[in-house]
Amino acid sequence: MSDLPKTVQINEEGPREGFQIEPGPISTERKIALIDALSDTGLDHIQVASFVNPKRVPGWADADAVVEGFRPRESIRYTALWLNEKGLERALSHRDRLHIDGSISLVASEPFLMRNQQRSLAENARMQRNQIAIFKANGIPVTRISVMAAFGCNYAGDITAERVVDTVASGFEIARDEDLAITDLSLADTMGWATPETIKRTIGALRERWPDLTLNLHLHDTRGLGIANVYAGLEMGVASYDSAVAGLGGCPFAGQRGAAGNVCTEDLVFLCEEMGIRTGVNLEALIEAARLAEDVVGHPLPGSLMRGGTLARLRAAPLH
Amino acid sequence: MSDLPKTVQINEEGPREGFQIEPGPISTERKIALIDALSDTGLDHIQVASFVNPKRVPGWADADAVVEGFRPRESIRYTALWLNEKGLERALSHRDRLHIDGSISLVASEPFLMRNQQRSLAENARMQRNQIAIFKANGIPVTRISVMAAFGCNYAGDITAERVVDTVASGFEIARDEDLAITDLSLADTMGWATPETIKRTIGALRERWPDLTLNLHLHDTRGLGIANVYAGLEMGVASYDSAVAGLGGCPFAGQRGAAGNVCTEDLVFLCEEMGIRTGVNLEALIEAARLAEDVVGHPLPGSLMRGGTLARLRAAPLH
Repeated sequence: MSDLPKTVQINEEGPREGFQIEPGPISTERKIALIDALSDTGLDHIQVASFVNPKRVPGWADADAVVEGFRPRESIRYTALWLNEKGLERALSHRDRLHIDGSISLVASEPFLMRNQQRSLAENARMQRNQIAIFKANGIPVTRISVMAAFGCNYAGDITAERVVDTVASGFEIARDEDLAITDLSLADTMGWATPETIKRTIGALRERWPDLTLNLHLHDTRGLGIANVYAGLEMGVASYDSAVAGLGGCPFAGQRGAAGNVCTEDLVFLCEEMGIRTGVNLEALIEAARLAEDVVGHPLPGSLMRGGTLARLRAAPLH
Repeated sequence: MSDLPKTVQINEEGPREGFQIEPGPISTERKIALIDALSDTGLDHIQVASFVNPKRVPGWADADAVVEGFRPRESIRYTALWLNEKGLERALSHRDRLHIDGSISLVASEPFLMRNQQRSLAENARMQRNQIAIFKANGIPVTRISVMAAFGCNYAGDITAERVVDTVASGFEIARDEDLAITDLSLADTMGWATPETIKRTIGALRERWPDLTLNLHLHDTRGLGIANVYAGLEMGVASYDSAVAGLGGCPFAGQRGAAGNVCTEDLVFLCEEMGIRTGVNLEALIEAARLAEDVVGHPLPGSLMRGGTLARLRAAPLH
């Protein structure tokens, strides 16, 4: 029972994931209010915006204004997402407020890559090399490979562990050519195909080849297995997870109505803390932020704990 | 990775769990329609009604009519719940349609027992002996001990593995006095306090003392950990789970608004089948039943798979 990590890093992606898919319109002020509330929960990494084409993702047309508007706290890394060089350049223009991470961004399914980013695997590899040049020019270290659709794809079906290993190997080829030292690997179950057993199988295969990589999981809860998949990751010793407050989000290009967002942050924190794994997050404050998220989007969100309530509260004051 | 069972027994409790808590009113005909739809899914055990005090649980005032109205299939065990001798006598009056299981029903938390069934542990032990006399008089074997609130209680806080062992031991004392051969043990996380680690710890402690008992888990999803707790049970080799279609239900006396129902049947079936564990259930038919459940109660229910859709469907016809 105890490969479980002692502490877990949580990367809050609710604002970025949520506002890209919510029909809205949601005002810039309300987006900022949610980010500021999240800054008060003890989370130390918040992804606050997406620099993408506003014609394709109108919810992030105001990304620049949101990034300029929130109240940063010193102890928190604020990051953003981009999918091409233009987006990266926009993110770089906010370097005083944003932490820019360099990474080699790959996709294990070419059909999804075509649909999500309108390019082939070969075109993506070229684009990654172009981005690396920009990272280098700006003094940004590139230490991470990330793989989308790492467990399955609505357009390509199951993705095997071998396919993921090959995808990561292609990333290491780029890293070798570009003289980069990769230390981190992020796997995304973008369309909710993973099960606890495929999580274990794929991580096992990657560990066999690259035992020293630090792993991160980005798990969507499309079919209700998100939190079980997190537990499988914890059993494998994975100590970094992306998640979204209240379960905000979903991928606009998964081709599926009702495609759920990331695993819910407060449910994930609850899972960890109840098993003695430290997250640094104040759960009651996070639940308040989750309730604010529901208010901002104007409809119920999938999170469970904000309805069930914490056990800490019941332990302190049992019902009678 | 492979203490996982090859097959899993699923006990569908959606009708019983759901109609006891839904504000309704829901007509007898609609309750029957859901039971009949569930009979067409491959499930081989459906708990169809609760014989409880209609003043306390008005949703089951029509339990007798529901039991007389559904269309039984030969291959399916239809069961009911009761909480006292009067309820048992009502259930026995439908023996032509219902399978009556004898069990010794215990609660690991006396404060919850007082709240849920208005009796002390000592009074409950006496009542169990009275029920056993009725079972014996009716030729019903008693082979199971069941324990409610086995992982925590809103009125009493955490429930340790030792407390559960003691509770089960008190059941074995009754069984010894009454000359009963207990083969099965059911543990209920009635108020959603379990985590994957407490599931493993408590099951481990019970297995150490009683290695040959066949275990069943009844897991509420109050705080979003239901499916992770199922996975922990599967890892421990537990091969029998109670669940509720669409995630219907909740306990009316848990003292908590928003207390969620059992783990969702179709999400559970999906978890098992995707990991190669057979359930005998037709997932597409079950999703249809889950949609019917939402229509019958008149509001969205928590199930995820009915929104995300099966992977079998995407494998057969990928999006393009």
